[in-house]
Amino acid sequence: MTTTSTMRSEIAEQPTALRRTLDSLLPRAGEIADLARGTSQVLFIARGSSDNAAVYGSYLLQAHAGRLATLASPSIATTYGAKVDLNGVLAVAISQSGRTEEIVDTLRWAADCGARTVGVTNGAGSALTEIADLSLVTEAGSEFAVPATKTYTTQLAALAVLALGLGADLDAGELRGVPAAIDDVLAMPEDGVDAIVERLVGCHGAVVSGRGMAFSTALEAALKLKEACYLHAMGLSYADLLHGPIAVVDAETPAILVAANSGPTLEGTVRLAERVTSVGTPAYAIGGGSALAGACDLAVATPDLPEWLAPFSLIVPAQLITEKLARRLGYDPDAPRGLGKVTQTA
Amino acid sequence: MTTTSTMRSEIAEQPTALRRTLDSLLPRAGEIADLARGTSQVLFIARGSSDNAAVYGSYLLQAHAGRLATLASPSIATTYGAKVDLNGVLAVAISQSGRTEEIVDTLRWAADCGARTVGVTNGAGSALTEIADLSLVTEAGSEFAVPATKTYTTQLAALAVLALGLGADLDAGELRGVPAAIDDVLAMPEDGVDAIVERLVGCHGAVVSGRGMAFSTALEAALKLKEACYLHAMGLSYADLLHGPIAVVDAETPAILVAANSGPTLEGTVRLAERVTSVGTPAYAIGGGSALAGACDLAVATPDLPEWLAPFSLIVPAQLITEKLARRLGYDPDAPRGLGKVTQTA
Repeated sequence: MTTTSTMRSEIAEQPTALRRTLDSLLPRAGEIADLARGTSQVLFIARGSSDNAAVYGSYLLQAHAGRLATLASPSIATTYGAKVDLNGVLAVAISQSGRTEEIVDTLRWAADCGARTVGVTNGAGSALTEIADLSLVTEAGSEFAVPATKTYTTQLAALAVLALGLGADLDAGELRGVPAAIDDVLAMPEDGVDAIVERLVGCHGAVVSGRGMAFSTALEAALKLKEACYLHAMGLSYADLLHGPIAVVDAETPAILVAANSGPTLEGTVRLAERVTSVGTPAYAIGGGSALAGACDLAVATPDLPEWLAPFSLIVPAQLITEKLARRLGYDPDAPRGLGKVTQTA
Repeated sequence: MTTTSTMRSEIAEQPTALRRTLDSLLPRAGEIADLARGTSQVLFIARGSSDNAAVYGSYLLQAHAGRLATLASPSIATTYGAKVDLNGVLAVAISQSGRTEEIVDTLRWAADCGARTVGVTNGAGSALTEIADLSLVTEAGSEFAVPATKTYTTQLAALAVLALGLGADLDAGELRGVPAAIDDVLAMPEDGVDAIVERLVGCHGAVVSGRGMAFSTALEAALKLKEACYLHAMGLSYADLLHGPIAVVDAETPAILVAANSGPTLEGTVRLAERVTSVGTPAYAIGGGSALAGACDLAVATPDLPEWLAPFSLIVPAQLITEKLARRLGYDPDAPRGLGKVTQTA
C-alpha cells in the first residue's frame, strides 16, 4: 500500500470543500424559506450516493423541521409517464453532475405536477441548475475518482442548509464546526482503519448498519464498498436488518456498525453489536464512542459532533477503508469496473 | 430433495388465500374512498416483506391513481419522537401479524400528526386493527413458516384493492383473474426453477433486479434468499444497480431479473440482461416472456398478466427457488436462524 490514489486526495479535500460550500450556501437560507412558502413537505429525487444523501436529508427534515420528507421513484415519471398531484411539495433533486437525464427529467416532471423545485448539484451551469426554481451548488471542485467522496459530504452540507432554511430547530454554528471535525478525523492515526481493512480481506460480504441519521452513512458506506471493492456489502437500517437479513450474518460476514457518539440511536446500535457478536459475527464500529467500541471487535473513533451532524464525520473512515481495501485487493479505487462518472440509466 | 416443508405448503395455498382475500376486500372499495376523501397522498409504514409490498403499493398508486405514495421512516416516530405535519395524508401500515410494536406505534403517531389511517394485516383483532380508522384484513389463514409467502401476496391483493378504492384506472376484473394465474404457475413443470437452484448452489451472492412494479418483486425475492438461504442477495432497481452495485456482478455473482411479460419496463430489463451477460455474469429470468428469456442463461416463464398484476405471479417462482435452495443447502426453510415470526425491533 505504498501508492496513493485520486480518491485518497479527494477524501482529504473534504474540509476545504465543506468550508467553501458552507460559505456559499449558508447565506441563502432565506431564499429557501421564500421558495418553500406554501409547501408542507419535501420529495427527494436522487440515485446512488446522492440518494444516500437524500436519506440524510429526509431524517433531518422530519426529525428537526416538522416536515414529511420522502424519496421519489423516478420511474413513475420516466417509465410510466404518470401524473401525480404534487401541489404543496418542494421537490429536491440531487445529482453530483447535474447531468443525469433521469434526475433532470424527473425534476421537470415534478414541476409539471405542481411542485416547487430545488436542485442540489456540484455542476454549476448544468441542466439541473437551468430547470430548478432554486439551485444549491456545492463547491466540491472537480471530482475525478468514480466513487463520490467530497461531492457526497458537500451534498450533506447543502441539505443541512436546506433544513435550516426550512426552519429546523438546529444551530448553524454547529454546522460551521463540521470542517474542523473532518480535519480531526483525517489527522488521526489510521491503525483502526488498517485493522478493519485487513479483516475485510477475503470476506465475500458484509453488513453495514446504522439507525436514524446514521442510516444514510450505512447505505453510503455499503455503496462505496460495493463499487470500489466489489464486496457484497448490504446497507441496512437496524429494523430492516432484524426483519430477515440478520440471517446472513455469520463468522465470515462481518457487521460494520455506525453511530453518533451520543443521541437517541446509540443504545440500540450497541445492542445490535451485542446481538451480532453473540452469534460469532465480527463487529467493527465507526463512531459510537466508547460504548459501541466496547461492544465491537475493532473500532474507529470519530470526533464528538451533535447527532444531526455525525454523518459528516462517520462516512470519512468508511471512505478510507474503501480506498485502502480496494488497493489492498489490487483494484484501482479511482476507476471501478462497469462504472462511469455520470450515470445514464435511460 | 425428497422431504417437503411448511413453506412449500403455504406457497401452494396462495390461490385459495387470494380468492378469500379478494372476496372479502373488493366489496370495501367504497369505504376506502370515503376515508380517503380530503387526503391527497399515501404514506406507507412497514418493514421486511411488508415493506416490499408497500413498494408495490407505492408504484401502483403513483402510476395509476395519480397520488404521491411514499414510504415512511418509522424511527422518526419511535426513535426521534418528532412531530411531522401529516394533514392530507392517508397513512397505511402493513404488518402480517398486526403486532409489531414499531409499526403499531408509528401508525398511532401518524394519526396524532393528522393522518387518516389504514391497517393492512393478516392479524384479525390485532393491535393494528384496533387503532386504524379502517382495517383491510387479509385472509391468508395461519402462516407458520418464518419466510412470508401467502401473507405477502395477500398484502399485494389488499393494496390492489386500496388502489381501486382510490380511483385507479384499473380493472377489478383483471385482479379477480390473479388466483387462476397463480394456479397456472404452480401447475407448471419446475425444471426451470430446479436448474436455477442448482446454479445458485455455491454462490456467495446474487443480484436481483426489476423495474417499476417488478422492483417490489426483486426486493422480496432478495429478502427470501437472504433469510432462508443466507445468500447475499441484493434487491436493486435497474437504475440503482447501474449507480454503483453493477460493479459487484461477475461470473460468481449471478443476476436474477424479474419483469412482466409486457409493458413499459420489459425493454429496459432485456437491455440489463444483455449488459450483465456481456461481462460474463450468468443471468436468470423470471417472467419477461420470450424477450427476456432469450437474453438470459436460464428462464422461468410466468403467465400473461397485465403489468400491474405481474408482481403476484413473478414472486411465486422466487418463493419456489428459495424453498428448494434452502433444502438443497441443508437448511430448514421454515425456521431460518436468527428470525422469529413476529419481529420486535424496540
